[in-house]
Amino acid sequence: MNDQEKLTTYLADFIQELVFNGVKDVVISPGSRSTPLAMMIAEHPELTYHINIDERSAAFFALGMAKQTRKPVALLCTSGTAAANYYPAIVEAKISRVPLVVLTADRPHELRDIGAPQTIDQINLYGKHVKWFVEMSIPDENEELHYFVRTTAARAVNISTQAPAGPVHLNFPFREPLIPRLDPSPFGEAKQAVKSTQGKLSLSNGEMERICMELETHPKGLILCGVLDEPGFKQAVLTLSNQLGYPILADPLSQLRSGLHSGDTIIDNYDSILKDGKHEEKLSPEVVLRFGAMPVSKPLTLFLKKLKNVEHIIVDSGSGWRDPVKMGTQMVHMDEVLFCEGISSLIKQERTSKWLEMWQTLNDKTRQIVTQTIEDVQELDEGRVVLELTKLLPNDSTLFVGNSMPIRDVDSFFHTNQKNIRIMANRGANGIDGVVSSAVGASVYAENMFLIIGDLSFFHDLNGLLAAKMHHLNITIIVINNNGGGIFSFLPQAGSSKNFENLFGTPIDIEFEYAVKMYGGNYKKVANWDEFQTSITRAVETSGLNVIEVPTNRETNVQIHRKMWNRVSQEKDQFLTGDSGC
Amino acid sequence: MNDQEKLTTYLADFIQELVFNGVKDVVISPGSRSTPLAMMIAEHPELTYHINIDERSAAFFALGMAKQTRKPVALLCTSGTAAANYYPAIVEAKISRVPLVVLTADRPHELRDIGAPQTIDQINLYGKHVKWFVEMSIPDENEELHYFVRTTAARAVNISTQAPAGPVHLNFPFREPLIPRLDPSPFGEAKQAVKSTQGKLSLSNGEMERICMELETHPKGLILCGVLDEPGFKQAVLTLSNQLGYPILADPLSQLRSGLHSGDTIIDNYDSILKDGKHEEKLSPEVVLRFGAMPVSKPLTLFLKKLKNVEHIIVDSGSGWRDPVKMGTQMVHMDEVLFCEGISSLIKQERTSKWLEMWQTLNDKTRQIVTQTIEDVQELDEGRVVLELTKLLPNDSTLFVGNSMPIRDVDSFFHTNQKNIRIMANRGANGIDGVVSSAVGASVYAENMFLIIGDLSFFHDLNGLLAAKMHHLNITIIVINNNGGGIFSFLPQAGSSKNFENLFGTPIDIEFEYAVKMYGGNYKKVANWDEFQTSITRAVETSGLNVIEVPTNRETNVQIHRKMWNRVSQEKDQFLTGDSGC
Repeated sequence: MNDQEKLTTYLADFIQELVFNGVKDVVISPGSRSTPLAMMIAEHPELTYHINIDERSAAFFALGMAKQTRKPVALLCTSGTAAANYYPAIVEAKISRVPLVVLTADRPHELRDIGAPQTIDQINLYGKHVKWFVEMSIPDENEELHYFVRTTAARAVNISTQAPAGPVHLNFPFREPLIPRLDPSPFGEAKQAVKSTQGKLSLSNGEMERICMELETHPKGLILCGVLDEPGFKQAVLTLSNQLGYPILADPLSQLRSGLHSGDTIIDNYDSILKDGKHEEKLSPEVVLRFGAMPVSKPLTLFLKKLKNVEHIIVDSGSGWRDPVKMGTQMVHMDEVLFCEGISSLIKQERTSKWLEMWQTLNDKTRQIVTQTIEDVQELDEGRVVLELTKLLPNDSTLFVGNSMPIRDVDSFFHTNQKNIRIMANRGANGIDGVVSSAVGASVYAENMFLIIGDLSFFHDLNGLLAAKMHHLNITIIVINNNGGGIFSFLPQAGSSKNFENLFGTPIDIEFEYAVKMYGGNYKKVANWDEFQTSITRAVETSGLNVIEVPTNRETNVQIHRKMWNRVSQEKDQFLTGDSGC
Repeated sequence: MNDQEKLTTYLADFIQELVFNGVKDVVISPGSRSTPLAMMIAEHPELTYHINIDERSAAFFALGMAKQTRKPVALLCTSGTAAANYYPAIVEAKISRVPLVVLTADRPHELRDIGAPQTIDQINLYGKHVKWFVEMSIPDENEELHYFVRTTAARAVNISTQAPAGPVHLNFPFREPLIPRLDPSPFGEAKQAVKSTQGKLSLSNGEMERICMELETHPKGLILCGVLDEPGFKQAVLTLSNQLGYPILADPLSQLRSGLHSGDTIIDNYDSILKDGKHEEKLSPEVVLRFGAMPVSKPLTLFLKKLKNVEHIIVDSGSGWRDPVKMGTQMVHMDEVLFCEGISSLIKQERTSKWLEMWQTLNDKTRQIVTQTIEDVQELDEGRVVLELTKLLPNDSTLFVGNSMPIRDVDSFFHTNQKNIRIMANRGANGIDGVVSSAVGASVYAENMFLIIGDLSFFHDLNGLLAAKMHHLNITIIVINNNGGGIFSFLPQAGSSKNFENLFGTPIDIEFEYAVKMYGGNYKKVANWDEFQTSITRAVETSGLNVIEVPTNRETNVQIHRKMWNRVSQEKDQFLTGDSGC
């Protein structure tokens, strides 16, 4: 077997096994050393490859696609700093539990650490931020080596998808020549080396009965749902909530605010309800049952931190320890759907609950005030953008949400609704980087894709728009442009330093219209709410890249929020000191 | 002492000590957790801070500035993926030996690995790609701790600048509140904790005499100079070359092609001379003396690999093992300037050398052919751009060169000249990423700053242009736009695969004019050589950001190169088979 044949058969076995194990998409950044893998991936009939020039964007693009499809996505780049550009998305994928199979090409041993070009130390390049690292061998024909390469592909996919899902990294040293044999096709008839079947964590009946009993003794409970995107969870937790009479405080990323029926037990306005920090004894639960990562709401966090003598149960299918409020009394490592269904099956009697009614009434009243206050805002404002979007988004939409202010506004203003709307964000490390690419990656397989994002975050990943142009993707991006870092206006440093605007405000004063035109998109800067509504409606009907810019004002935004919180606080005061019902 | 006072005095000591040790510039990316360091750095009267929103750009910006000033530059960002964005530039800085002091803010211990927002594992975040990592303590008032923080600052700068220079990383956990006390100024009268004085590697007299003797026994020697930017080296190596009668094959990044006098022993056309691989026995040296990283020329590499029984001495002040051709017979770890001066002082008699004359004549003839062939090219061509630039650049210019094709074209076509032109490139890992930011960073303290770059590399770091706009920097960028990855047309995969254009050509079809306008720059796409010349002349006189786009054709470019190499080969044939003179 000559070297080309060794290269070809080795990689054919690897790629075939990736496919057997469920990889369908590979995001490729062009390069020289990665030539053998790139050329062979492009030849595989069951793989779709997506070219993405900037490796930082490429990795976030893969992350978004993996989120949207709930499948592992592979990534390929050449040696050198190209691979280092993957780092931010890998860090995000690890914390937010997104399966990525990262393939990097490398120089062979004899070219390492001797000043050869494009050669960096890629062994454990991503440190503890990947679940698994394997230094692959130089391609050869040895039979055991072929078993190694096939099972390594299988294990890579397996590890990346096993809860908690995350990124894995395989580093491939290649010697020249780098051209594989493509004719006849390197992919013959092959069968899978080893099939793997993944289990889910579950508790014994005895353990479940103990927990159920604890829940049944306490009529005042709160179910908190943070970031979680697990099919089947919504129905399971809604059923449990009804049985226990516990309201569900649902973060927008719990996917529990959309596709609802009237009478559902979702509380969507807890951020505004809890903002003033008053009447906490009336709202205090005896037990908290939490699923998913911690919700974004800061008032909720502060509320939880002040609770005393509360049983706080955290259920996590990924065996994590996600308790930033440090209130957990029980860590339950179990699949969330199995947990809800299991407890439901043990509950003897559905509870009618004044506690639940109180939360629902308070939530309805708050939602009314929030909606009224925000709908009264005539100038362009960040909160109302979200409120309008909730109405304007078509059924079967995906809304990707930028970090910093947008996710907070979505938390406050994206209310429960009956449409099928999926909400996604990069809430692992909450970076403002890579958001455009993540949303564009998600758009590949999404029906109606929207992104709401701030100007700094949009700028940070402008390069992400190239993929939308190159691959003719459909996405509508709403850019909230307050010309700088809006979130800092809510923090203590606002006004405290003569350097505030330089260090934190950081206005960048750029016209995004140019960038959008460069990437062949449709652009509209709106001047009022009519234009905003028309633009969204038009974007829904227009394929390709649509960017709608909403200029807002950082100071006005702070004032509007404060006014709304005051009104909510007054109403809550009246309700809870009057007939609180509890 | 209250918490604010503890925070303030701890950081004041740290920052003051950075300044004592020579840090003058800090590149800051906005963020929340980094607030205390950012606010205090902004207050220090002897520090200049440079805001750069995108951390990937920020780190390359710092890298370029550190290259230009030959001083350590500090970097500051917040916690989370922000810090991961520094990775590509850090990897580059480590290999290309550029001193960076990387400061990252982090959450305190009690918020780590429990799902708190913007919290990632930052311990050893950059793995083996930094020279030193220190996890700092929570600010406190303990006296020994203050000694620790001051000496850590001193050591950080010291380690980053000590040969081989490189990046160091200090991670700062901060608890809220994050606002330091700024009034009265936190920087009182302070004196330096510990002064450090750095030595240079040198050999004993006996060792130097042995090496000198070896050189004197061999009349046929070649001095190879790769990437090296050390003041004093040019004079020292030119003197040595004259004494030994050894020609200097000087990579453009050796800084030896500019500021020359007639009769200097620099060979600048060895890439074209060696391209055909013929007459190698006549050109073969008995000894090779090499300084700096390996030169970029591939024909030179292949030529060296075929040499037999050659003494190959590699001198490296940074104790590296930079020998990708695997021909080294002696690794000499000594300061390059001291080495040249030391050997020079031992040489008894200057050699007149037919060997040197042969190389000089061959070089002159080759330069003539190369110049003629390329000046005859009427269509816009990548080689001629460099030839024209050599003529058009004003005295006291810095030319930053992109990787992939531009650095190869500069190697072939940037000929010896009498002007003061400094040439820089990111040749550590040779990435196409971060090049714009590096050049923009270098422009802060450069007199006349130029960048020549390909379209993919320009695209990769378009974000780098924001700093030019925000800080009103002066830089002229020449974008060679062949709409895709031109270098791949020279590689074996060209034409070998039906997916070639998709996987490697990767045309991105964007109009850069939009990007340049967005960043407030002047833009000109030239149609012919007259326009090119006029545009460069105009750019020299126009402050701010100037971008000159030169559309070229990937196929034509390959043809022109081949034609030129053929003509050089014929001339060489004639010269060396006629009266070779040696």
